[in-house]
Amino acid sequence: MEADAGRGLGCQKTMDGRASNGILTKKEIPSCCLKARASVPELEAKCHSTVVSGWFSEPQFAYDDGKKRVYFNNPMWPGEAHSLQVESILFKGKSEFQEVVVFESTTYGKVLVLDGIVQLTEKDECAYQEMITHLPLCSIPSPKTVLVVGGGDGGVLSEISRHNSIEHIDICEIDQMVIDVSKEFFPDLAIGFEDPRVHLHVGDAVEFLRRAPRGKYDAIIVDSSDPVGPAQELVEKPFFETLAKALKPGGVLCNMAESMWLHTHLIDDMISICREVFKGSIHYAWASVPTYPSGVIGFLLCSTEGPPVDFKNPINPIEKLEGAVKHKKDLKFYNSEMHSAAFALPSFLRKEVKALVDSPNPSQN
Amino acid sequence: MEADAGRGLGCQKTMDGRASNGILTKKEIPSCCLKARASVPELEAKCHSTVVSGWFSEPQFAYDDGKKRVYFNNPMWPGEAHSLQVESILFKGKSEFQEVVVFESTTYGKVLVLDGIVQLTEKDECAYQEMITHLPLCSIPSPKTVLVVGGGDGGVLSEISRHNSIEHIDICEIDQMVIDVSKEFFPDLAIGFEDPRVHLHVGDAVEFLRRAPRGKYDAIIVDSSDPVGPAQELVEKPFFETLAKALKPGGVLCNMAESMWLHTHLIDDMISICREVFKGSIHYAWASVPTYPSGVIGFLLCSTEGPPVDFKNPINPIEKLEGAVKHKKDLKFYNSEMHSAAFALPSFLRKEVKALVDSPNPSQN
Repeated sequence: MEADAGRGLGCQKTMDGRASNGILTKKEIPSCCLKARASVPELEAKCHSTVVSGWFSEPQFAYDDGKKRVYFNNPMWPGEAHSLQVESILFKGKSEFQEVVVFESTTYGKVLVLDGIVQLTEKDECAYQEMITHLPLCSIPSPKTVLVVGGGDGGVLSEISRHNSIEHIDICEIDQMVIDVSKEFFPDLAIGFEDPRVHLHVGDAVEFLRRAPRGKYDAIIVDSSDPVGPAQELVEKPFFETLAKALKPGGVLCNMAESMWLHTHLIDDMISICREVFKGSIHYAWASVPTYPSGVIGFLLCSTEGPPVDFKNPINPIEKLEGAVKHKKDLKFYNSEMHSAAFALPSFLRKEVKALVDSPNPSQN
Repeated sequence: MEADAGRGLGCQKTMDGRASNGILTKKEIPSCCLKARASVPELEAKCHSTVVSGWFSEPQFAYDDGKKRVYFNNPMWPGEAHSLQVESILFKGKSEFQEVVVFESTTYGKVLVLDGIVQLTEKDECAYQEMITHLPLCSIPSPKTVLVVGGGDGGVLSEISRHNSIEHIDICEIDQMVIDVSKEFFPDLAIGFEDPRVHLHVGDAVEFLRRAPRGKYDAIIVDSSDPVGPAQELVEKPFFETLAKALKPGGVLCNMAESMWLHTHLIDDMISICREVFKGSIHYAWASVPTYPSGVIGFLLCSTEGPPVDFKNPINPIEKLEGAVKHKKDLKFYNSEMHSAAFALPSFLRKEVKALVDSPNPSQN
């Protein structure tokens, strides 16, 4: 964490000049960060460069020296941007790895942003967290040992907690600030860390997996950010090899796998690699998440050689697990019907992603 | 069409002052409309108020007198906005009913905008047009007579053309300018008008349906814009009653039904009305459409009393219709698997939309 960007320095000063150094409570939010004030764009820009006239945007825009708005295109989704209206900025900090921002939006609840990219909003996080967790865990009978890569907000952990069969959960998150910020601003997600089965490892997942015992896990969930910056290595073959090695025979991987509308090349590459590395079944699924680019997110599901896994028809349906649907909070998005439906793919995807149909073992496709 | 806003007056003058009065070809696009020029925001604003620094946005923003950016919240999706980078504006006109804009985007192809709202883009129109057409037409055996309400771009017509069983297609579109603009800029969609089975009626659908013979249609597809402005009446009970009256026994309606993430109240209202009006089965389905607010669009499917309709399991699968999958152009999105999957609903929707489970005849739910 940089010395001059400590936790809570959302804005250095309130409008009346009072210094504010702790995490900001709602009452303490400087008025320069409050809702849309077209009359003071300069002050707002000082609060955060991505928030202009009361709106946060991907890609970011900011005022250049001449007070003109300058747009940046994100290379992952050129030519489009999604914006959320900002009620107030709650946190702004810079860790060793990335910039972390939390804001209260007017209609999507609190929003977590890493390096300018929306990671989750309170309104739609359910779709991502529930699907990335239960797609793998409901596809195998009685999972016991799980690893989460990334997932520092705790949302995936809190979903894993619904499964009584689980005995041990490792989580390897690289950025302590994400964990701290989530505990402060997203307690409903971070509650996942309180499960006594959870063992937290703050560090590099690539390194963690190199040292992981062979065949330790029933399931691994890779809840990483986009493959730019710290997550770059997480879409490369050596990483998938360490994942496969750490899984039991018939163990399953669920890996965040971008947008079917925007990233067919990347999806094709990931599936091709996984076809070489995993000898069980390989499937692509997707879910609707409004605040992710193009409104969808994909999941790559792979199993290792061993007991066959029928990803499309959950063998371990959540509705039959005692207390799972209502554990602490109700499931909002996932159910067994959504599970199976997530594997239905648009015709263009089957055409553009050759690896989807290019199976060495067609019976498993 | 207003006298001073004729077809093609994208910008009144080119940069060198040459007047431009016809529809603009790419070569004739005034340079003030060309790609992002942060240095000439005033000129761009003159080209179109929704395009600033080379980006189109929902909700719109524009410069006010003092050259400050002013944001408008769309009441249908407050607090969020989607933006597309503009390559060039191809058309700008004002019809009797709405403002019509066509622009070339950098990554979504050509875009049709009505009253500031994206209606379709070349990249993702397939999802909407294919689903709204084949969900109803593949749910009944051998459809013969179809009515399209709205759909002036022709995309739904071109999808209906895939069905050889169809003998007669009526389309009632209120705005001739939408048809003309589509023929000029979206020939792949407007080709639907060339099908000799198509009978075009330019006028008010409410009026058209009042005069429609009872029991004329096997299927009606309501491809309307959002229920603000001219489409307001299209979500009210009297309109659904005329739709039901115009359908044969066991005939089907597919009605555009907004976003499950944003409009649960509206969906609940529509389903409640349809439960009173339609005595067959009532279902909600949805599809991913990146450029629609929240990245999804819903469809309300209803059948009249008569031969029962099993919407979830298409009785008339497109893959078995001779030549249908590759008619003129390949299906890009729809297939029978996507058809069934579209009816899987997130848990929150079943909870929030009481009418979904509040069926007078549970066996049909």
